[in-house]
Amino acid sequence: MLDIALIGTGGFMPMHNRYLTAMLARLNGRMLLIDCGEGTQMTLRRMGWGFKDIDVICITHFHADHIAGLPGLLLTIGNSGRTDPIIIAGPKGIREIASRLCVIAPIPYEPHFIELSPKGDAPVAFMAGNFKLSALALNHHIPCLGYRITVDRAGKFDAEKAKRFGLPLINWSKLQKGETIDHEGRRYTPDMVMGPERKGIRVSYITDTRPTSGIPDFIRGSNLFIAEGLYGDDEMLDQAKEKRHMIFSEAATLAKDGEAGELWLTHFSPALQDPKQYLPIARHIFPDAKTGFDRMNTTIRFKDGEESDI
Amino acid sequence: MLDIALIGTGGFMPMHNRYLTAMLARLNGRMLLIDCGEGTQMTLRRMGWGFKDIDVICITHFHADHIAGLPGLLLTIGNSGRTDPIIIAGPKGIREIASRLCVIAPIPYEPHFIELSPKGDAPVAFMAGNFKLSALALNHHIPCLGYRITVDRAGKFDAEKAKRFGLPLINWSKLQKGETIDHEGRRYTPDMVMGPERKGIRVSYITDTRPTSGIPDFIRGSNLFIAEGLYGDDEMLDQAKEKRHMIFSEAATLAKDGEAGELWLTHFSPALQDPKQYLPIARHIFPDAKTGFDRMNTTIRFKDGEESDI
Repeated sequence: MLDIALIGTGGFMPMHNRYLTAMLARLNGRMLLIDCGEGTQMTLRRMGWGFKDIDVICITHFHADHIAGLPGLLLTIGNSGRTDPIIIAGPKGIREIASRLCVIAPIPYEPHFIELSPKGDAPVAFMAGNFKLSALALNHHIPCLGYRITVDRAGKFDAEKAKRFGLPLINWSKLQKGETIDHEGRRYTPDMVMGPERKGIRVSYITDTRPTSGIPDFIRGSNLFIAEGLYGDDEMLDQAKEKRHMIFSEAATLAKDGEAGELWLTHFSPALQDPKQYLPIARHIFPDAKTGFDRMNTTIRFKDGEESDI
Repeated sequence: MLDIALIGTGGFMPMHNRYLTAMLARLNGRMLLIDCGEGTQMTLRRMGWGFKDIDVICITHFHADHIAGLPGLLLTIGNSGRTDPIIIAGPKGIREIASRLCVIAPIPYEPHFIELSPKGDAPVAFMAGNFKLSALALNHHIPCLGYRITVDRAGKFDAEKAKRFGLPLINWSKLQKGETIDHEGRRYTPDMVMGPERKGIRVSYITDTRPTSGIPDFIRGSNLFIAEGLYGDDEMLDQAKEKRHMIFSEAATLAKDGEAGELWLTHFSPALQDPKQYLPIARHIFPDAKTGFDRMNTTIRFKDGEESDI
C-alpha cells in the first residue's frame, strides 16, 4: 500500500491555512517528497510521519513556492539523525540550484542528485531509493516536470504448482521475490510458479503547466491524479494561460482523458479563497474530483484489497 | 512611538507553535524586519501589518533559521505591489548570499545592499530608510551581528520663546524639524527655541552569540532588549558554549549590566519545550524578563507618554 499526503496546497504565496506546494508519499516505511515550498517542514512536523526516513525529494521546477523550503528541510532531516545520503531529483540544474540554496544549511550528509531532461511527450523512467518513478516534461515558463510513482505488483503465487514441483517452503519466497532457484537438479524460474503481473498502484503529480498532449498517457490509469487548479472559474482561463497554469476544468479534462481513478486539485491561487466553491465545475467533467487541503491524506491499496504478495 | 513584534521565536528547527527567528519593528508606518527564518512570511500574514511597507531587512548571519525565508518574503513583498527598492543589510557577503537564495525568486525591484563589518566592540552606525541603526560584531561560529534601533527625540519646543522672538506660527514646525529660518533680518536656529534633546527609544536585538564584552554598552539603556536564550537551565551552559549560544542567565546578566528596561527572551532550542518553566532563573538576575512567543508585540512610547513633537 502507498500513503499519500498533500503537505501544502497553495501556489505563489502562503495563506493562513494553506502553505506552499509539497506532496508526501510513503511506501514500506520509506518516504518520497515531491516539491518543497516554504513551510514544508512545518507541515511535515504536524503530519507526524517523521523526517529521517525521507529518502527522495523530487522538485518540479525552480520557483520559490516549490523549492524554498529545501535548505530548512535538509537541515531538519540532518538533525533527525540521518547520515545516509538523500536523493534529490529535478530538472537539469537541480544540483547547482540546491547547492546555491544550501549555502545557508550545513547538512551532515551528501545529497545524490538526479538531473532529468525528458523531451517532448516521452517520459524518463528512473529509480530513486525504493521508488519507481517517471518524469514528464511540462509546459511552464521555465523547465518543469510532472512525476509518476508506480508500485508494481507481482502475479499471484501458485502454491499448488509449487507443491506439485515438490519445492520446499524455504524456496517459495525466493521465487516470489524474482529469484531463480535450483532444486534436486532442476532449475526453477519465477514464471513457473507466478501468475501474470497484476495491476499495481500509480499516483501522478502534475503542477505548474498548461495542459499538454503528453499528460493523458503519462497519468493513464493512475489511482490518484494530483493536479494543479490555480483558478476555479472558467473565466480565469486567459489569466491561467498567461501564467502557464491550469484551471479546474482543464485538470478535470486531463483526469477524464487519462482515465484516472480520482483527481485531487491543488496549488490554488491566493485569489481562490474557497476552492470548494468551484468543485462542481470539475465534477461536471470528472465526477471523482476533490479539492485538496493541507494534510489531506489517503492510503491506496491494491485493487482487490490484498496486500502485496512480496 | 515604535511597535515591536516577535515574528518567530524558535532556533534551529521550527516547532508546531514556534517558527524560526524574526523580529518586526514599525515606526511611522514604515517597517524593519530583523532576520527572516523560514515561515516568516506566514507569521507576518497573521500579524496583519502588511508587506508593502517593509523598507529594511537586517540579517544577523547566514544560517538557515535566520535567512531561509528571504526569497519567499521578497516575492510576497513584490506581489504586494511594491516596486520601490528594499534595503537588505547584513554581514559582509549579504549581497552574494541573498543573490544565491533569490535565484528561485524573480522579484520586481532591486534590493540595495548594506554590507557591515564592525570590528571588536565598536558598533557601526547606519541609516536604512527612516531607521537609525547600529550593528555590533558578535561571537558565533560564523560572522554574526547584533542590531540596535534608535528613535531620537528632539528637545521640547519653547513656544513662549518663539512668541517672544515674534516668530510667526508658520516657522515653528520648520525649527522643530531642525531647519534654520530667516525672519525680519534675523537668523533663527533650532537651538534658540528647542530644549535639550530628550531620551528617545532604543531596542536592541542580540542572538546567536556567546556573551561579549561589547554587548552591555551596545544595549545600554534600551527600553527593550531582545536576546536569545537557547536553553533555560544553567546546566546546559557547556552545550551553549559549544554551540556559541547563550542561556537564560547569561542573557539576563547582559540585560542587568546594560541597564535595559525589559528583556524578551527568544530563539529557543527545540529541546526547550516550555521556556516559561525557566523564567524564574532569568528573573532572579533581571526581574523584568519575559519569555517571547510568536506574535508577542508591544508599543514603546517616549518615557513621559508624550508623542514626539516632530
